[in-house]
Amino acid sequence: MKMAAGKAAHQRRCLEALQRKLGHQFGDVDLLIRALTHRSASTERNNERLEYLGDAVLGYVTAAHLHQALAKAPESALTLARAALVKRATLAEVARSLDLGVYLIFGVGELRSGAWRRDSILANALEAVIGAVHEDGGVEAARALVMRLFDDRLEDSAAAAAKDAKSALQEFTQARTVSLPEYRTVQEVGPRHQPCFTVSCEVVQLGLKARADGASRKEAEMRAAAAVLSQIEAGDGPG
Amino acid sequence: MKMAAGKAAHQRRCLEALQRKLGHQFGDVDLLIRALTHRSASTERNNERLEYLGDAVLGYVTAAHLHQALAKAPESALTLARAALVKRATLAEVARSLDLGVYLIFGVGELRSGAWRRDSILANALEAVIGAVHEDGGVEAARALVMRLFDDRLEDSAAAAAKDAKSALQEFTQARTVSLPEYRTVQEVGPRHQPCFTVSCEVVQLGLKARADGASRKEAEMRAAAAVLSQIEAGDGPG
Repeated sequence: MKMAAGKAAHQRRCLEALQRKLGHQFGDVDLLIRALTHRSASTERNNERLEYLGDAVLGYVTAAHLHQALAKAPESALTLARAALVKRATLAEVARSLDLGVYLIFGVGELRSGAWRRDSILANALEAVIGAVHEDGGVEAARALVMRLFDDRLEDSAAAAAKDAKSALQEFTQARTVSLPEYRTVQEVGPRHQPCFTVSCEVVQLGLKARADGASRKEAEMRAAAAVLSQIEAGDGPG
Repeated sequence: MKMAAGKAAHQRRCLEALQRKLGHQFGDVDLLIRALTHRSASTERNNERLEYLGDAVLGYVTAAHLHQALAKAPESALTLARAALVKRATLAEVARSLDLGVYLIFGVGELRSGAWRRDSILANALEAVIGAVHEDGGVEAARALVMRLFDDRLEDSAAAAAKDAKSALQEFTQARTVSLPEYRTVQEVGPRHQPCFTVSCEVVQLGLKARADGASRKEAEMRAAAAVLSQIEAGDGPG
């Protein structure tokens, strides 16, 4: 909410409530205020730099967690699990669970247009808050915040990634009663002791298709399925 | 280099030399071996997972450093500076400065094809080494490694980013005696107290063009220039 000058006590109470929800008490509360300031309120002192930092911190913390939690998963599963965690819609959900929109500081025009409800603005502000905690308390404070905020979602995405991509894609299509994924070997090259397969995976009714390579047909199929799932996660499909 | 079984002493000496160059003594040297193993040598125990981790660690460490070093720079300059640091060609250069190709472990086919010289393979292996140091010594050991390896490059990219994008692009075109960048205001919308400008920036002889928005004409021009510079960095131009 936009704070008029002189309402300092109200602002302080608001920020205290948010810090309790975050589980992080700021040494420098100006960092939190900066993280909550949309560029419509100030072209100079807004949250864009902190968003840049928070995006990198979030990418790192989730990658490191998944790398450890999924000790047996191939790189493709880790990539997929992280993409699901850090996509805009997930970040906006987490931001809503904190009522973050209520605390944001906008210019008059943006405020009237209902900007505090928009996914992109909420997602960016959440990243800025993560960046602010990093600046205030260092990388371990930021890691603890991300683990608290993403808690169940980290476990869910890890569990989903642990399931193989072909099964996950098959379940997805069955749940929506569309045609099953079709796999086709496009190419097989390389010497016999080190072949390379190229496989396509297509879900006709969803208009989704991807290709991938692998050292075995099964591996190439897994990767192609993972690529189609990424398209679904990214919102290319109706999922 | 591919190590035959029984040449354990030779392998140990090689790995000791590499660890001295890295400035990190591994507690678990198997992590380093894993980071050096291309998937052609093993579809199971290769460096792909560590590359995934190292990529995220490198992105985070460079973002945090630039955020601090360039306290006044806008987010667009930070993004630009980081892109220059973590692009494939830069990573391959850093890998070559360590002679990393010499230490890589390939399958027979890849070894014969000269894979150890390829930018993409060197860049991926460097990220895997950063991931391995993170696993071995934690985030601060990985941060110290990145700061050592990128040393001057971090300073150069920070200095380049501190210079404004319009000046940098102008210098670039003058150095190559091509036409100067041309800026054109494409659109001006929004209420008077909060206008939004869209500006295009074009370097005709290089066939490069980009558009950007900003709260002032100057800001939009800076961002458009930065976008053209990114295209040059990404290799879209002849730069």
